[in-house]
Amino acid sequence: MNQPMDTGKDHRVVFQFVASDRPSQKALISNLRNLLDYWPEAEVEVVFHGPGITMVTTADAPLPELLRTLVHGYHLRLVVCGNTLRGHKLTQADLLPFVGTVPVAIAELIRKQEEGWAYIKAGL
Amino acid sequence: MNQPMDTGKDHRVVFQFVASDRPSQKALISNLRNLLDYWPEAEVEVVFHGPGITMVTTADAPLPELLRTLVHGYHLRLVVCGNTLRGHKLTQADLLPFVGTVPVAIAELIRKQEEGWAYIKAGL
Amino acid sequence: MNQPMDTGKDHRVVFQFVASDRPSQKALISNLRNLLDYWPEAEVEVVFHGPGITMVTTADAPLPELLRTLVHGYHLRLVVCGNTLRGHKLTQADLLPFVGTVPVAIAELIRKQEEGWAYIKAGL
Repeated sequence: MNQPMDTGKDHRVVFQFVASDRPSQKALISNLRNLLDYWPEAEVEVVFHGPGITMVTTADAPLPELLRTLVHGYHLRLVVCGNTLRGHKLTQADLLPFVGTVPVAIAELIRKQEEGWAYIKAGL
Repeated sequence: MNQPMDTGKDHRVVFQFVASDRPSQKALISNLRNLLDYWPEAEVEVVFHGPGITMVTTADAPLPELLRTLVHGYHLRLVVCGNTLRGHKLTQADLLPFVGTVPVAIAELIRKQEEGWAYIKAGL
Repeated sequence: MNQPMDTGKDHRVVFQFVASDRPSQKALISNLRNLLDYWPEAEVEVVFHGPGITMVTTADAPLPELLRTLVHGYHLRLVVCGNTLRGHKLTQADLLPFVGTVPVAIAELIRKQEEGWAYIKAGL
């Protein structure tokens, strides 16, 4: 291997996802796959809020198996905004089983940046 | 209170807003309300530029009272890009009275990040 | 001059560009021009990926002369994601001659932020 030292171990990034269109959903998957293929040890969190929630509800998730594979294979955490959940009259039980929650999406995105994580707004 | 220590006092975030569609405008308000409800002492700035300016002109602002209430109740500052103002042949007098200006939106967003503020691109 | 000291020399920003609509393309040019007019010595990189690539291919680039002028006149670097290139079955030869590549767009955006660069998601 030519790059034995950068497995991505020390890289941390939080993605924000608010889109609900299919091209943006596919782009998010693609972003995650490309990144984790390149830096398999990177620590990644995706915060879904607003219309972005449709990507991770059992009712609407378009690509649940792809997400599950990524979550189980890498240091990837998917979380939904608690305010968004309540706004949609949903509970944790309506989310894909490997998806967590955070109280407030924007606060989570701020906190992660304060802790030194890079930030990426996903979606087209 | 269960969380007496995190009133948000030390959190600082700058939002970028360039959208002009109603759902994005509502989402921005919702982002701000949820954040300031959670961290009432947080320091927040929103930079409007490009088409985003329509949210804060007296002619077009869709939700001026909600914005006014937030500005007066929290540490929230709303500013418009000077280049955008000139591009629309508007002046400070065409903006909601509690809205300020900055010379260059992108420079403001850079400067705030350099000073340690978190950055969020708002809009759907 | 009242501000003789801030030529932008110490400011560094990486833009992410994934849009392919004309208004977003024009907004990016406008963002760059306004920024570099204000801070002519700023160091700027734009990372194009996904549909954003159309802005910098010889086949589709809508404003190649404007980009060329900016690249040659300032500390501006334009780069395309290698994964996006392959996904479009394109090579470096299909890009405008002053455009480079990076292996993985998201990794580049993370790395720049880790090095202290500000981050801006461009596009409307």
